[in-house]
Amino acid sequence: MHAQTHERPGAVVLLSGGLDSTTVAYLARASGYAIYALSFDYGQRHRRELEAAAAVARAVDAVEHRVVRIDLGAIGGSSLTGDGHIPTTPEPGGIPSTWVPARNHIFLAVASGYAEVVGAQAVYIGVSQVDYSGYPDCRGEFLAAYQRAADLASKQFVETGRSIPVVAPLLYLSKAGAIQLGLALGVDYGLTWSCYRGEAVPCGVCDSCRLRAAAFAAVGVPDPLLDPRR
Amino acid sequence: MHAQTHERPGAVVLLSGGLDSTTVAYLARASGYAIYALSFDYGQRHRRELEAAAAVARAVDAVEHRVVRIDLGAIGGSSLTGDGHIPTTPEPGGIPSTWVPARNHIFLAVASGYAEVVGAQAVYIGVSQVDYSGYPDCRGEFLAAYQRAADLASKQFVETGRSIPVVAPLLYLSKAGAIQLGLALGVDYGLTWSCYRGEAVPCGVCDSCRLRAAAFAAVGVPDPLLDPRR
Repeated sequence: MHAQTHERPGAVVLLSGGLDSTTVAYLARASGYAIYALSFDYGQRHRRELEAAAAVARAVDAVEHRVVRIDLGAIGGSSLTGDGHIPTTPEPGGIPSTWVPARNHIFLAVASGYAEVVGAQAVYIGVSQVDYSGYPDCRGEFLAAYQRAADLASKQFVETGRSIPVVAPLLYLSKAGAIQLGLALGVDYGLTWSCYRGEAVPCGVCDSCRLRAAAFAAVGVPDPLLDPRR
Repeated sequence: MHAQTHERPGAVVLLSGGLDSTTVAYLARASGYAIYALSFDYGQRHRRELEAAAAVARAVDAVEHRVVRIDLGAIGGSSLTGDGHIPTTPEPGGIPSTWVPARNHIFLAVASGYAEVVGAQAVYIGVSQVDYSGYPDCRGEFLAAYQRAADLASKQFVETGRSIPVVAPLLYLSKAGAIQLGLALGVDYGLTWSCYRGEAVPCGVCDSCRLRAAAFAAVGVPDPLLDPRR
C-alpha cells in the first residue's frame, strides 16, 4: 500500500477548501503526516470550493488528492445541492436549509474506507462544535459514536484491533480561534473559499461569507481573499 | 415531504437487486410500508445488478427508486470496482478481495439521510451475519454502533428524539433461510441477480454464484433465474 512507500505516516484529510479544513490540513502536515487529501464533488453549487481544495492540497504537498463524485442531489433535502434559495440572513434558530442530511457521516465513512486502502493512520476533519452552524454531525458526541461504528466496519480493526482515529483538532475552537491557529502554522487563507455561491468573488452576504468576515474581524487581520492585489 | 402524501408509512430499502435485498424489499412491503428503493451505482463491475434492482422496485410498487452515483473506484481497494481478478474459488480465510472498505457504512449513511428527507420511518438492509462472507459491516455489532452514530447525525433525532431505525430482518438467517422466507412472501427470484460478473447469464463459478446455488440446493427448489424457459 501507499504508506509503505513513504517514510512519514499518512493521514487522510477531509478537504473542502474552506477555512477549517485548510487549517486542519496544515496542522496534520505540521504534525509529521503525509497528506492524503479527500474532497467530494457532491453536486454542491459552490464548485469554487473544489478548485480551492486542489490549491490547498498542492500547498501542503499532498501525496495525492482524490475527488470522489457522489450525487447527493439525488436524495434531495438541501439548498446547497438543489435549486432552493440560499439564505442571506441568519435563519431563526434550529438547523438551516443548507443542511445536507448525514453529510459528514457519509464523508467520514468514505474517508475511513480510503484510509484503510492507503494504510493511513488517522482521518482529519475540520468540524467545530462551537461554530457548528446547527449541523448535528459536527459535534463530538457524533464523532465518538462514529468512531465506534467505523471501527466495527473496518477490516483492519477486526483483524488487528488497530483503529484509524478520527481527529478533529478544531472541535472546541471558534472560527476566530481556528484562524489564529492557522496563521501560526503559516496557512495562506487566500487559497481558501467559503462563499456558498460560486462566483468570481465572494458574495459577502451568505451565511458562510458572514461567518468568515466576523471571524477575521475578531482576529483583527484582513481576509487575504479580499485583498484587491490578489 | 413525500410520506405525507401517502397513507402508508415509508421505508427506505437498500436494494442491490440481489437475493437478500430483494427478500427484504418484499418483507417491508408485506409489513405495510411504502417502499423508497435506494440503489448505488458505485463503479461495480456487475451492473446487471442495477437492472435487477429496477425490476424489483417495480415488483414491490416502490414509490420511487433512486440510484445514487458514487465513485468508490476513486478510493480503490476492491476487485469488484477495479480491474483485479475476481476469485472463482473460496479464498483461504479472512476477508475476501471483493471487500469494498466501509461500503455498507457509506450506503447506510446515505440511506439514513434519504430517509430523513422523505420522512421514512425505517431503513431496511439485507445483511446477514450468518452468511456474511467475512465483511465486518454485515454484523449486528456494527449495526448497533451505526444506529447510535446515525441518530447523533440526524436533524430529526436531535430536534425531536425520534430515531429512524435500521432494520435487518435477515441478520440471523442463512441464505437458505432468507430464500425460504422470500418464497413464503411470494418473491420472484427470477428478477434478482447475484453474479459478480455482468454477463447475459450467471457465470456459475464466482463466489456469489456458488453461494446462491448452494442456498437454492439447501432449500431444495430450482433457481428460477437458471430456468431455460425464462
